[in-house]
Amino acid sequence: MYHRLLSRRFVNQFSRSCYQFGHEENQESGAPRARKYTKMLLGASVGTLLAYKFYDYRNNAVVLAESPEMKMGNVGVAKADLPVYTLHEVSEHSTKEKRIWVTYKEGVYDITDFVTEHPGGDQILLAAGSSVEPFWLLYAVHNNPHVLQILETLRIGNVSKEDSQQLVADMSDPYSTDPQRHAALKPASVKPFNAETPPFLLVEQFITPNELFYVRNHLPVPQVDPETYELEVEVEGRKKCLVLTLDEIKKLPRHTITATIMCAGNRRSEMVKVKPVKGLNWGAAAVGTATWTGVRLRDVLIKLGVDEDDKKLKHVQFEGLDFDPTGKTYGASVPLWKAMSKRGDVILAYEMNGEAIPRDHGFPIRVIVPGVVGARNVKWLGRIVVSENESDSHWQQNDYKGFSPSTDWDTVDFTKSPAIQELPVISAICKPSEGEKVKVEDGHIVVKGYAWSGGGQKIARVDVTADGGSTWFVANLDHQDSAEPPQHWSWTLWSARIPIPSGTKQVELWAKAVDSCYNTQPETFKNIWNLRGVLSNAYHRIKIKLV
Amino acid sequence: MYHRLLSRRFVNQFSRSCYQFGHEENQESGAPRARKYTKMLLGASVGTLLAYKFYDYRNNAVVLAESPEMKMGNVGVAKADLPVYTLHEVSEHSTKEKRIWVTYKEGVYDITDFVTEHPGGDQILLAAGSSVEPFWLLYAVHNNPHVLQILETLRIGNVSKEDSQQLVADMSDPYSTDPQRHAALKPASVKPFNAETPPFLLVEQFITPNELFYVRNHLPVPQVDPETYELEVEVEGRKKCLVLTLDEIKKLPRHTITATIMCAGNRRSEMVKVKPVKGLNWGAAAVGTATWTGVRLRDVLIKLGVDEDDKKLKHVQFEGLDFDPTGKTYGASVPLWKAMSKRGDVILAYEMNGEAIPRDHGFPIRVIVPGVVGARNVKWLGRIVVSENESDSHWQQNDYKGFSPSTDWDTVDFTKSPAIQELPVISAICKPSEGEKVKVEDGHIVVKGYAWSGGGQKIARVDVTADGGSTWFVANLDHQDSAEPPQHWSWTLWSARIPIPSGTKQVELWAKAVDSCYNTQPETFKNIWNLRGVLSNAYHRIKIKLV
Repeated sequence: MYHRLLSRRFVNQFSRSCYQFGHEENQESGAPRARKYTKMLLGASVGTLLAYKFYDYRNNAVVLAESPEMKMGNVGVAKADLPVYTLHEVSEHSTKEKRIWVTYKEGVYDITDFVTEHPGGDQILLAAGSSVEPFWLLYAVHNNPHVLQILETLRIGNVSKEDSQQLVADMSDPYSTDPQRHAALKPASVKPFNAETPPFLLVEQFITPNELFYVRNHLPVPQVDPETYELEVEVEGRKKCLVLTLDEIKKLPRHTITATIMCAGNRRSEMVKVKPVKGLNWGAAAVGTATWTGVRLRDVLIKLGVDEDDKKLKHVQFEGLDFDPTGKTYGASVPLWKAMSKRGDVILAYEMNGEAIPRDHGFPIRVIVPGVVGARNVKWLGRIVVSENESDSHWQQNDYKGFSPSTDWDTVDFTKSPAIQELPVISAICKPSEGEKVKVEDGHIVVKGYAWSGGGQKIARVDVTADGGSTWFVANLDHQDSAEPPQHWSWTLWSARIPIPSGTKQVELWAKAVDSCYNTQPETFKNIWNLRGVLSNAYHRIKIKLV
Repeated sequence: MYHRLLSRRFVNQFSRSCYQFGHEENQESGAPRARKYTKMLLGASVGTLLAYKFYDYRNNAVVLAESPEMKMGNVGVAKADLPVYTLHEVSEHSTKEKRIWVTYKEGVYDITDFVTEHPGGDQILLAAGSSVEPFWLLYAVHNNPHVLQILETLRIGNVSKEDSQQLVADMSDPYSTDPQRHAALKPASVKPFNAETPPFLLVEQFITPNELFYVRNHLPVPQVDPETYELEVEVEGRKKCLVLTLDEIKKLPRHTITATIMCAGNRRSEMVKVKPVKGLNWGAAAVGTATWTGVRLRDVLIKLGVDEDDKKLKHVQFEGLDFDPTGKTYGASVPLWKAMSKRGDVILAYEMNGEAIPRDHGFPIRVIVPGVVGARNVKWLGRIVVSENESDSHWQQNDYKGFSPSTDWDTVDFTKSPAIQELPVISAICKPSEGEKVKVEDGHIVVKGYAWSGGGQKIARVDVTADGGSTWFVANLDHQDSAEPPQHWSWTLWSARIPIPSGTKQVELWAKAVDSCYNTQPETFKNIWNLRGVLSNAYHRIKIKLV
């Protein structure tokens, strides 16, 4: 799926890649980090011209197939004569003053002097101090030997094979052994690390690259040795239990699904404008889509003797290997029917987009419960307990629940609301962004975004308006998985071409999605406000300037 | 379930039964028929006093258990010396001028002179020209030998055993053999017959009595002889098929579910206010809840050799025995996964609330697809075809689909939208009704209604506001099935006690529900308007007067 998508993307990449330079971007002005992106993008003309200079796209497939320079297998490979840098050292080189370094595989490159020549413009700065690889997945125009050739001329060193974070670890700080993150992620908090993808990158590709995938950690990232890792699986009150090593898990039948994972607090920053809430100030990108490979939880539970129709057992509890200062681990649960159903597709995943799951995403095993809120997709999975009861964890009992707009911290009773499982239908505009100056071309602008619904529901329609709902335009569903509901786990990427009356200087865009149950989004945050700021799925509304 | 509910109701009936006389009701003023109900309800004092006169409730359980008058087995039984009347003749006696007749079992009664003495006031006129039995199910205070005793004193005749409609049938009119309907149903159209329950009756009991259950017919009601009835079941392109008689169906394992069925056009009359649509002008009561008994469709399909995991077969098509003038039968289909899933609970039902399914509801067999729009719950089922394709019927392909608010009859393309299956979350206020004068007691009013969501989702919360959403009150979920999602098929009946600032003369009430996926209702009809007026699930808003 992943490779198929990449290759399909390769075919029509050029036009889409150029589109993004067709207007100036002006990232959300709220977070200080966002200012960094403001400088990154050039006007259309320079980018497009340079793109032509470097990539004679129509011909290169033929020309390059015959070129000896195609044998670029050595690019990014460690070279004995070059100095070695840790990822932490690389991350400190992200400005022109300190020189701009990037990595590609095992190579370290100084791209400071190349930035002005980059056909994609300042976009390259998203990789400053980090890896260029996730962007090369997004912009397949880089899948070109010429690009590798140019890159290798900028080579200055090798990436250290040591875990760079380990070398600087301060043992008094439980977060000191957290992994190095990609510089393009926008943190909502640093300890624990929580960060989202720049929204405009989300709509570049159906699959979100691992390094750019939003991170939601509740606690420090545990360091798990795959050699000694063991997963305990048991039924409450029964003696028989399973203890599985990573190798044993991998020997069970493989199952791959493509699924969107979303944080319950995605888009919270919009709800906050009504009234303050408790929670991370997420924008619209605490969401991503990946292929996940592992074994069906159903297969493991059947091995343990769990009966799908057991009237007493109702929940499957998950415990992570991450723990708080009192030793309490992260925990959550999902209903047993979801875990046991053939159509539930719950897997114990060990691969994310074809690679071992990265540490930030649950290495070595994360349970993927597709269609269900991220908080139940427990990472660094250590223990599974089939039980009559839900998990008694804070996050299952006293968090991740919805309430009435009039419920406050004095009146809230967490026992009265169900734990969030399947998420409601949502959509967001990812391009343009709030406040951006957009060029009107042929009397139109193009708007792009994602839409998704939990519970395996498919997006049936996305409507966009630029006049407060007097006229709605039906968006084109550009990328959508072919799976039918209720096993449709992935988001839909959409675009809409909206006519703009001449002379218009500013518009407010609204987007709303409809899913295969014909559920749709609520209009405003006022009437869905809740004290935890979860389930923020009102119409997405952004104001843009027109030029 | 049905009997359990009745008996539970019996225990605390008195207080609730009295409540309904606590304020004047003023039914929706839109439909002419609604005026009839305006006159029906008395003020609190008379009703309550009379109630005490007739029903010494606290003592009667003891007193009557010892009373010889309890042997009332003869009430409603045919008596040889009395004249015989058809149901049609009875229906012509519904006003004081023509005398007011009602039926109970096989008895005909003239209640004209009893009306003013009736403890429940003019409410009794809902039965004028029809049966009192559905109301006695709703208001269990009638489950009392004294009531039967009083009734029998009014006896004037016997109900004809002939189908009264048959006797007056005009063979040039295909609707002339339709069954006699209860006078309390409010027709949206007469030919075909489509009618809803008076909304305030819906919230009287979790189960809707058969005679008051909304009727949605697309064509004349077929006359099916249960002795010769046969159901054909086949897989497209395969030779093997099943032909089942009613007896053979009844010999398969019985399965009973309680499920709400709702028309896709329920509450259309509110959407129409935005802009006209095509469709019946339904109020908020094209919905009802019943227990349905039959056999699992899954069991029948397994008998036929259908494999749940068959990759080619995707739909189950249903054909009714009702047909249009060209001979084309009513048809619809549902996805195969729904029919085959153990958790899908799709049944071929032959009983509704413990009785043979009435003719208007699909006698002898109706497929019940719980959680799915009424239009796919095909009545008078004649044929089932498992297929690669959806039903090609008009109602599957060119009707019962949702569209963007900006799609009109010139631009609509029915192939672009999915056929409605699971319905989105909805709620409605049933008591008070639009324009009603409500008495404020202790600074509060009580609001009652239903909420439901398709796809087996449960109602998690209902919020009610009387100040445009500045303050939301969480409703009490009075009656809710204990089944867990995604097998929660029934509605939730709720009530909310709303404080009213003194001196307030008028308020607008809004209700919205949230389901177990935390999907909620859209706020306004403007942004969900569609040319067929389906999926009308915006907040329910009614204006009432306060006294």
